[in-house]
Amino acid sequence: MAPLGERSDDPVLPDPPQGPLHVARARASFPWKELALFWEGEDTLRFKKAIFSTLENDPLFAHPRGSRLSVEKYQELNFLRCKRVFEYDFLPVGDMLGSLPRVLALIECLGMYDWSLAAKFFLHVLTFGSAIYSSGSERHFKYLPKIFSLEIFGCFALTEVSHGSNTKAIRTTAHYDPSTQEFVIHSPDFEAAKFWVGNMGKTATHAVVYAQLYTPGGQCHGLHPFVVQIRDPKTLLPMPGVMVGDIGKKLGQNGLDNGFAMFHKVRIPRQDLLNRSGDVTPEGAYVTHVKNVGQRFSESLGSLSSGRVAIVGMSVVNLKLAVSIALRFSATRRQFGPTDKEEVPVLEYPMQQWRLLPYLAAAYALDHFSKSLFLDLGELQRGLLGKDRSVSLPTRVHPLSSRGDPRQRGIQECREACGGHGYLAMNRLGDLRDDNDPNCTYEGDNNVLLQQTSSYLLGLLARRDQGGARIESPLKTVDFLDGYADILGRRFEGSSPEDLLDSSVPLAAYEWLVCYLLRESHQKLSQETRSGKSDFEARNDCQVYHCRPLALAFLELTVARRFHEHTHQPRVPPPLRAVLQRLSALYALWSLSQHTALLYRGGYFSGERAGKLMESAILALCAQLKDDAVALVDVIAPPDFILDSPIGRADGELYKNLWTAVLQENKVLERASWWAEFAVHKPVVGSLKSKL
Amino acid sequence: MAPLGERSDDPVLPDPPQGPLHVARARASFPWKELALFWEGEDTLRFKKAIFSTLENDPLFAHPRGSRLSVEKYQELNFLRCKRVFEYDFLPVGDMLGSLPRVLALIECLGMYDWSLAAKFFLHVLTFGSAIYSSGSERHFKYLPKIFSLEIFGCFALTEVSHGSNTKAIRTTAHYDPSTQEFVIHSPDFEAAKFWVGNMGKTATHAVVYAQLYTPGGQCHGLHPFVVQIRDPKTLLPMPGVMVGDIGKKLGQNGLDNGFAMFHKVRIPRQDLLNRSGDVTPEGAYVTHVKNVGQRFSESLGSLSSGRVAIVGMSVVNLKLAVSIALRFSATRRQFGPTDKEEVPVLEYPMQQWRLLPYLAAAYALDHFSKSLFLDLGELQRGLLGKDRSVSLPTRVHPLSSRGDPRQRGIQECREACGGHGYLAMNRLGDLRDDNDPNCTYEGDNNVLLQQTSSYLLGLLARRDQGGARIESPLKTVDFLDGYADILGRRFEGSSPEDLLDSSVPLAAYEWLVCYLLRESHQKLSQETRSGKSDFEARNDCQVYHCRPLALAFLELTVARRFHEHTHQPRVPPPLRAVLQRLSALYALWSLSQHTALLYRGGYFSGERAGKLMESAILALCAQLKDDAVALVDVIAPPDFILDSPIGRADGELYKNLWTAVLQENKVLERASWWAEFAVHKPVVGSLKSKL
Repeated sequence: MAPLGERSDDPVLPDPPQGPLHVARARASFPWKELALFWEGEDTLRFKKAIFSTLENDPLFAHPRGSRLSVEKYQELNFLRCKRVFEYDFLPVGDMLGSLPRVLALIECLGMYDWSLAAKFFLHVLTFGSAIYSSGSERHFKYLPKIFSLEIFGCFALTEVSHGSNTKAIRTTAHYDPSTQEFVIHSPDFEAAKFWVGNMGKTATHAVVYAQLYTPGGQCHGLHPFVVQIRDPKTLLPMPGVMVGDIGKKLGQNGLDNGFAMFHKVRIPRQDLLNRSGDVTPEGAYVTHVKNVGQRFSESLGSLSSGRVAIVGMSVVNLKLAVSIALRFSATRRQFGPTDKEEVPVLEYPMQQWRLLPYLAAAYALDHFSKSLFLDLGELQRGLLGKDRSVSLPTRVHPLSSRGDPRQRGIQECREACGGHGYLAMNRLGDLRDDNDPNCTYEGDNNVLLQQTSSYLLGLLARRDQGGARIESPLKTVDFLDGYADILGRRFEGSSPEDLLDSSVPLAAYEWLVCYLLRESHQKLSQETRSGKSDFEARNDCQVYHCRPLALAFLELTVARRFHEHTHQPRVPPPLRAVLQRLSALYALWSLSQHTALLYRGGYFSGERAGKLMESAILALCAQLKDDAVALVDVIAPPDFILDSPIGRADGELYKNLWTAVLQENKVLERASWWAEFAVHKPVVGSLKSKL
Repeated sequence: MAPLGERSDDPVLPDPPQGPLHVARARASFPWKELALFWEGEDTLRFKKAIFSTLENDPLFAHPRGSRLSVEKYQELNFLRCKRVFEYDFLPVGDMLGSLPRVLALIECLGMYDWSLAAKFFLHVLTFGSAIYSSGSERHFKYLPKIFSLEIFGCFALTEVSHGSNTKAIRTTAHYDPSTQEFVIHSPDFEAAKFWVGNMGKTATHAVVYAQLYTPGGQCHGLHPFVVQIRDPKTLLPMPGVMVGDIGKKLGQNGLDNGFAMFHKVRIPRQDLLNRSGDVTPEGAYVTHVKNVGQRFSESLGSLSSGRVAIVGMSVVNLKLAVSIALRFSATRRQFGPTDKEEVPVLEYPMQQWRLLPYLAAAYALDHFSKSLFLDLGELQRGLLGKDRSVSLPTRVHPLSSRGDPRQRGIQECREACGGHGYLAMNRLGDLRDDNDPNCTYEGDNNVLLQQTSSYLLGLLARRDQGGARIESPLKTVDFLDGYADILGRRFEGSSPEDLLDSSVPLAAYEWLVCYLLRESHQKLSQETRSGKSDFEARNDCQVYHCRPLALAFLELTVARRFHEHTHQPRVPPPLRAVLQRLSALYALWSLSQHTALLYRGGYFSGERAGKLMESAILALCAQLKDDAVALVDVIAPPDFILDSPIGRADGELYKNLWTAVLQENKVLERASWWAEFAVHKPVVGSLKSKL
């Protein structure tokens, strides 16, 4: 990328336009540009600005949004835009590994513009590309330049019609035939068809296909990835034996062509097995350096972990957009007031503050969490932390990379907080919710992921009980569990709402809560096992009220702790400390308040006062933050062209923007083409009654 | 309607088709046909069957669903279908008032098929029609036959661009001009344009327009409804001075044409003022029998109350469809199992049961609630209950007719519980959510409605404290408050999970909870007022943790109590008692469990045991109900054609149905029309870099 020289007439952070939001901005307690600089860093700000301006200046990226186009038109436009992104080459391949913050920023920029575009681009470049790079070996690197020159187009084909989260049960087979030195890829029936695969519907020429590997003699060696050509790059017609198509319209992201494929004895060269975890000799012998089948399996899926981290990031980006729209709307929409003559902005109502400001705090907390997690993952991958290769990376990071629901809830709350206008498609809250929705379920049901997190925590406790070794992890998220017994003895000691205005108080409560749920889960699990249940049954019977809340509380604690540390570090510029620490306290307290029943039940809270203090503190923080809300939004909102929501524009000219956008719609004032069906062809009422 | 004769080859309740769901059905503890008969009654079952078959047999009603059509095409189809409904004349006008259960059933049938159709039909016939009937007088009845013969098409125009929930602040004006005996309808600016009006976008010829009435001399008499012709029925072109158009794509219900209108000094005859609550003499004098402006206002909006009840009903219907799809899916989708070889239906997992079965119970509880409320409302309107006309009907029913969120949450949970397949548009969970979404906000933000409910309850308490009169209401929902002081002294006394398996236990807890929140709200409100805040401020500062939860708890109690009474009455056939009482207990306990923190805080619960008992009871009820789930769904699910979800079909052939539907999609196996953009027109990577 060319150096992003700053011209004096083109500052990195331009002033917001004049308009009704000016009053709200003037009330902010902090300089928003300083926060933007602290939050993103100057390089990232410049990089994002360059991308955003480029998109805005290129007519190919002019709206309308995808949900207002036909699926076919949208897919075409999305492909053309994807191609154009290659022409701009915002972040050359060589720079990617060296600049993870820019990778993150590029995902965020394209995603803020349209997730269909971001998904199409990154599924090809990162998911397909890194599957080949990390699961294959030198003989596969020939594919990499073809990815970046768009000679081939890739997809990642794991899930099948009848198997999603249970990846072990995948049924596509790959039988090795030594006579021709080929693998025969086969789908036994349509239930084993690959399904949901992004880019497979209309575009992909090559797929990384996961299949059960069989050697001659019929031995199955488990799931392995293969590179399979599915279409001819010269014609985009399917290869012989491949039945490939589009799965049809989805709730969102319809610019992305999700597809299916059935393989009828499709032959591929032996070399196209991605052989990092296991290989087959020309004669048909299976060779591997990984002894354990389970570990081989987990290694072959390792590349999913970075996918999960990206998903956390995706839903945070959507939440940032949604709260930006909802808060700007709330600061300008007036409804009711102290007298019949005077109406106040709805953001002045404590109810509206309470609905939205915790999600603003969550957007900041989760933004920091997902970005710092992504960077830590990069560090881990480079081996700078934790040298022990015997524990695979996924196990280490995985417990943090599941979950999505609070963000989906947040987007829906934002949509409802905008009343009817939030239901209008042009205001984008529907697209944000719909495009975000798959984050709740893909790469396995969230509840399945949460189960893995709680198992990890229970395993730590068990190992400690057995060997007495210190509990620690490379990211230090579990180290506090070493004080398990002491923490369980803690009690809440606040006596006024002021005692709760710093996030250290809810963090201490969270530590107690995690330990309490860990003890409860451990006891429940032992009890179920003692009663004669199988491990499978016992585990299932502990999920709802034990292991699942344990995993959730642990994840919330981890997010809250990272945000607390980030906002309390000495390098936070003094003018930003108060507002950031309020956001941290609000996020932690508000998340914690979902668990009040457990705090009481387990004795951490007692008496009416504790619960009331927590409520008062949350409302006090909302009241303190409401005048900062618009400035906080200015920090995280993209330019108007990218945000693309008339009710969320930076000038706050709510109704003018809405009205103009309505009048720009297609045929808005024209009578319907079918007008004669009303005017001339009158029905005879009851004429078809006899057909009932 | 012709008598619905039963032929032996066409029973009212046909057996479900054979298929994989057969096993699940065979495990049910009760005969589902008997429950269907008890739940709906034979007349309603026959009526619904006739409507459903009629739609299925008419090619005009063949799918695809609206969300897969362009808005223009969908609106056309929806209008043609609406016309066809007139030709079938399922429920002649004359029968409507005499058969409220059939009105309900017709709304449900059309809504289950498609809410865009139901909304278009009922906004015209019921909302527009009843506004004229109930707000007008004899001189307006000339419009009624024209509604039913489709000579005119109507809409109800209340909300404006800048005012939704605050109806008092509506800014459209109607100045009376005695020289021509006309009203001049005028929109002062675009912020006062009527907006969101269903049917106004492309179809309506007439609107009931709410405007501020001014008599000569400039006195304003408040909001009044007027009949205004907005289009020429012969051409569907706008009338002079009317600027009318479509507001554009919404998140859902896009077959319905929501519109806007601005009036530029549009003149209408004096007689077109709907004069029930106030009239103007030819000379320009204002006359009314209602002395109080507030009451006149509330009377003029009276017809909204039935709208609110209908909204409760709409979202219940959507929840019934969503749980039907999700439970049939869960009973046939297998994933993981005790061994690698054996997979079990996901409904066998306690986690999946706990996610879905409470919503199944809620669907039954709320179905009964909304239907019985609608019938009670009818009774009240006929004056059979409560003769006192000084308290207007809205005040009486209103507290029960707000709310919608648990249903929206339920639909989203159903969608997520179906994993990826729930994200496929053809499976309909997206449409259900999107079509249901406006129920969360229209006719005023739900939180505004909840505020009115809590004010009503606080008012009762205040009146009791002042005068000591008994607390009672026509529907008996508040009568228990008479025991306020005693109830506050209650404590939870259960000692084993079995003690909680009947809904009387959570009902008692709910009564305590409502009284507790009433006391807390009252104290908080007094405290805020004493501290010098205005009434407006004090009220706002009590919403989040006081008045809002009070209103919610009261509404939940009312729903739970009605369901409890319905399931415990002697006329419940013995084979149905166990399953219905379990549903009642599950709904009540699960709703109550959201308030556990308050039960502890206020001292109703103490010790770990109480909370654990509640959790155990909920899980026990889920386990008891899971084998009944599919049969319970058979009772509430419409025929496959209407449910229109491959993964939710009655035979349970999950994958066959899904696969067939995918292959039926348009151009599914065809290569994209823009294939050459990939194959031939390759991008030059980085060629546009200089433009950055």
